[in-house]
Amino acid sequence: MKKQEFTLHFLASELGATLIGESMSEVCGISTLQSAQSNEISFLANPAYEKFLTETQATAVILSPDMAEKYQAVLSDKVILVHNNPYLAYAQISHFWDKPTMKVVGPAYISNSACIHPSAKISANVYISEGVIISAGAIVHKGAVIGPNCVIGEDSIVGMNSLLHANVTLYHGVTIGDNCILHSGVVIGSDGFGFAPDKKQWIKIAQIGGVVIEDDVEIGANTAIDRGALDNTLIERGVKLDNQIQIAHNVRVGQNTVMAACCAVAGSTTIGKNCVIGGASGIAGHLTIVDNVHITAMTMVIKNLKEPGIYSSGTGVQPNAKWRKSIARLRQLDKMAARLKVLEKKLTSHN
Amino acid sequence: MKKQEFTLHFLASELGATLIGESMSEVCGISTLQSAQSNEISFLANPAYEKFLTETQATAVILSPDMAEKYQAVLSDKVILVHNNPYLAYAQISHFWDKPTMKVVGPAYISNSACIHPSAKISANVYISEGVIISAGAIVHKGAVIGPNCVIGEDSIVGMNSLLHANVTLYHGVTIGDNCILHSGVVIGSDGFGFAPDKKQWIKIAQIGGVVIEDDVEIGANTAIDRGALDNTLIERGVKLDNQIQIAHNVRVGQNTVMAACCAVAGSTTIGKNCVIGGASGIAGHLTIVDNVHITAMTMVIKNLKEPGIYSSGTGVQPNAKWRKSIARLRQLDKMAARLKVLEKKLTSHN
Amino acid sequence: MKKQEFTLHFLASELGATLIGESMSEVCGISTLQSAQSNEISFLANPAYEKFLTETQATAVILSPDMAEKYQAVLSDKVILVHNNPYLAYAQISHFWDKPTMKVVGPAYISNSACIHPSAKISANVYISEGVIISAGAIVHKGAVIGPNCVIGEDSIVGMNSLLHANVTLYHGVTIGDNCILHSGVVIGSDGFGFAPDKKQWIKIAQIGGVVIEDDVEIGANTAIDRGALDNTLIERGVKLDNQIQIAHNVRVGQNTVMAACCAVAGSTTIGKNCVIGGASGIAGHLTIVDNVHITAMTMVIKNLKEPGIYSSGTGVQPNAKWRKSIARLRQLDKMAARLKVLEKKLTSHN
Repeated sequence: MKKQEFTLHFLASELGATLIGESMSEVCGISTLQSAQSNEISFLANPAYEKFLTETQATAVILSPDMAEKYQAVLSDKVILVHNNPYLAYAQISHFWDKPTMKVVGPAYISNSACIHPSAKISANVYISEGVIISAGAIVHKGAVIGPNCVIGEDSIVGMNSLLHANVTLYHGVTIGDNCILHSGVVIGSDGFGFAPDKKQWIKIAQIGGVVIEDDVEIGANTAIDRGALDNTLIERGVKLDNQIQIAHNVRVGQNTVMAACCAVAGSTTIGKNCVIGGASGIAGHLTIVDNVHITAMTMVIKNLKEPGIYSSGTGVQPNAKWRKSIARLRQLDKMAARLKVLEKKLTSHN
Repeated sequence: MKKQEFTLHFLASELGATLIGESMSEVCGISTLQSAQSNEISFLANPAYEKFLTETQATAVILSPDMAEKYQAVLSDKVILVHNNPYLAYAQISHFWDKPTMKVVGPAYISNSACIHPSAKISANVYISEGVIISAGAIVHKGAVIGPNCVIGEDSIVGMNSLLHANVTLYHGVTIGDNCILHSGVVIGSDGFGFAPDKKQWIKIAQIGGVVIEDDVEIGANTAIDRGALDNTLIERGVKLDNQIQIAHNVRVGQNTVMAACCAVAGSTTIGKNCVIGGASGIAGHLTIVDNVHITAMTMVIKNLKEPGIYSSGTGVQPNAKWRKSIARLRQLDKMAARLKVLEKKLTSHN
Repeated sequence: MKKQEFTLHFLASELGATLIGESMSEVCGISTLQSAQSNEISFLANPAYEKFLTETQATAVILSPDMAEKYQAVLSDKVILVHNNPYLAYAQISHFWDKPTMKVVGPAYISNSACIHPSAKISANVYISEGVIISAGAIVHKGAVIGPNCVIGEDSIVGMNSLLHANVTLYHGVTIGDNCILHSGVVIGSDGFGFAPDKKQWIKIAQIGGVVIEDDVEIGANTAIDRGALDNTLIERGVKLDNQIQIAHNVRVGQNTVMAACCAVAGSTTIGKNCVIGGASGIAGHLTIVDNVHITAMTMVIKNLKEPGIYSSGTGVQPNAKWRKSIARLRQLDKMAARLKVLEKKLTSHN
């Protein structure tokens, strides 16, 4: 399949970049400096890759003003696009070469194999793939794309231009905003984990709240978000959740917070805006985390985080033999502290 | 959609609660004290919320006898339902306002789009949703509900009144008891992780055991339970598993144990009855955990737990700068212990 | 259902084992020493089970030469198959009693309910189950089995004799090699987690790389493998991934490495060959782990591992009260170290 070609003039103008060199050259792809071929464009965002700049086969490179000045002479055979934020520029033009799979690129499409309840409201310009099941009262707004074998529960809503990849499940009463992306295996609106103990048995608490996902949210593969017990679970505008995440009932995740894969957030916790949550972190229930908190990977958050900043936990990795000693010593710490105190006393009595 | 209304007289009688006030008032929902509107009922279970009791808009509140006595005068404009266990009472009446999605509320239903093997046995009064696939020899008992796009493997059994939400997968030879709830994305009966090493290659061991899920078990979204290698994997009656849990082959989970999200239990481990396993905990293989063990979140269980009690691990969360120091010191602990010993010797020789 | 019977002569000859006893006896199953019935075969691989050898009801047992010599007299009523590696022998014959579910045992089969794009290339001898959706340009090679409700994206390839269990999702541009097994809920080719920050918003970076899964790879239930940002994500030949694993974009996992359930590997990390990664471990991004590394369960890998060996982290499990003390002391370690230094100085000045 032939890849689409764009002139560097066009790309520079899309990016608002200054162009140094032959503007009518065409490129048919974007790659790393190391992998780029001679008909592709590349970029330098991370200083660690500066060493590859003089060796790249790329026809054109996106550079910051500093780097452009430094390398303009050396790279005289290349076209340079000067941009204040090459990483952002890369993000923006990367979409020119993305496969338009399952986007509403042509006319609307509703597969014959989809089962759509007569009371569901389907806007005119949508794409409903094979095997999709849409329940009573559901609404699919303009430009939305519903991937193969997705299931949309009763009275749930998919906002404009939102994309559900294959095998997404929305329970009933779930609202997805505009311009959201939900990856395969995502489950939204499953029951929160609520039981009342009664003589060593567990009595289920009906989970009668819903889930609200605001606009511009992306949710990674196999992530699950439970419905609220009484009120809603809420994912605010611009949040990005990676794969395999667990969001329990009545959690609230603030605007533009990003969470890496495999995190677990227990019930009724509120996470602020613009937080960065490292992968495989666990956050206990009924906590509050303020805005602008950064949690490193595999952190165990068991108290409120009241100040912005970076938080961590864990012991890091060690060779097993040393780790065994560390752990054994950790268990003796209380005794070591006592022995230290004894010594301090003795030494004080000496003087 | 209008919510269903119930008289307080009816609710009190369902709960066996004593009613103080106007018994024929109606309520059309249940909410927290903070969110309740004037036509709703609420409850006080957690003392932390006592402060909201005098401000709630609810028409009626469920209180313990103590609280009822304390607040009866202040809440003279409200109806009080006195119950020994308000949280349990809440659990019981919450179901009155649950959406009867996919329950067998009317006559039985079998979707035309379902593919059911002629040798499968489907009881009379069931609900088989769109896109369901039921394989040869499978049995679906009375009152069971199979959600959209579920797949039921050969010779697997779904017990009476059990509910499989959308997109559940049962492999072959899986038995689900009565009154179970399986949430979307659940996979039961996948192969255990068994390989024999042979000259740096891994030879697959066929997993020829099955999975038995007893009655009254609930399994959360995207949880996976592997089939046994030779014998069965077993989840006993009344167990509640949250989302994103991994249960490996030949694990046995005892009656009424609850396990929060994202736990992983490795192969051939036996967990006792009435245990509470905190979220994101990991339990190594071939271990035994006795009854009534409570494991806090993110604990790493690498030995048998032979006594009931509370168990924990992890370093808790710290600001990153302090954490870095803690971890560095942890690695020096062995040397610190040695230095302490030297001092103790010196000081002894002084005296 | 009657289980298939095999003569011990046949089994010994398949295994290259030496047979002591009545070679024409038949067995109809394989079991552990404890569970075996009188018409079954068993094996002794783990010395911990030696104690069950004299009590087993099995008709035949697979023993190492040492054990055969030691127990030949005692087990005179049984047939012994002598094999250098009884565990491997068990692995090999276990398949004789595996249920041939969804294998191409008879003629090829393509369900009427499958939706196959006209431009997809489907080899002659395949099994395409109910509800399968195969997109434009996809290729399914000879002997492949596609389970119910699987979705195969555009231009994706399934290699010869590979088995996709029910509800597997392949995005577009994903290549699965020969003889692979993908379990239910697996998602391959979802977008990597890539965003460029722009004034507190996150701009999505199109993920235009693919995923390559080489031959003989097994992938457990609900595992997700993201597509590359620019280059491919790569799982090399013979890798075995357990359930609920997360592999981020541009990760590379080397030949014959095995990874237990619930591990998370962050973006652009390279893992060597023949590694063993314990369950629920987390590996940070942009790291390199050399060949033959063994990581114990729940380890937090936050630096390159440059030498083969065993690595660990975590604090292990303690009773909660002791754990609280350990953690409190861990936070005082810096002060303890300072106090120790003071004592050392004092004591030096004494002498």
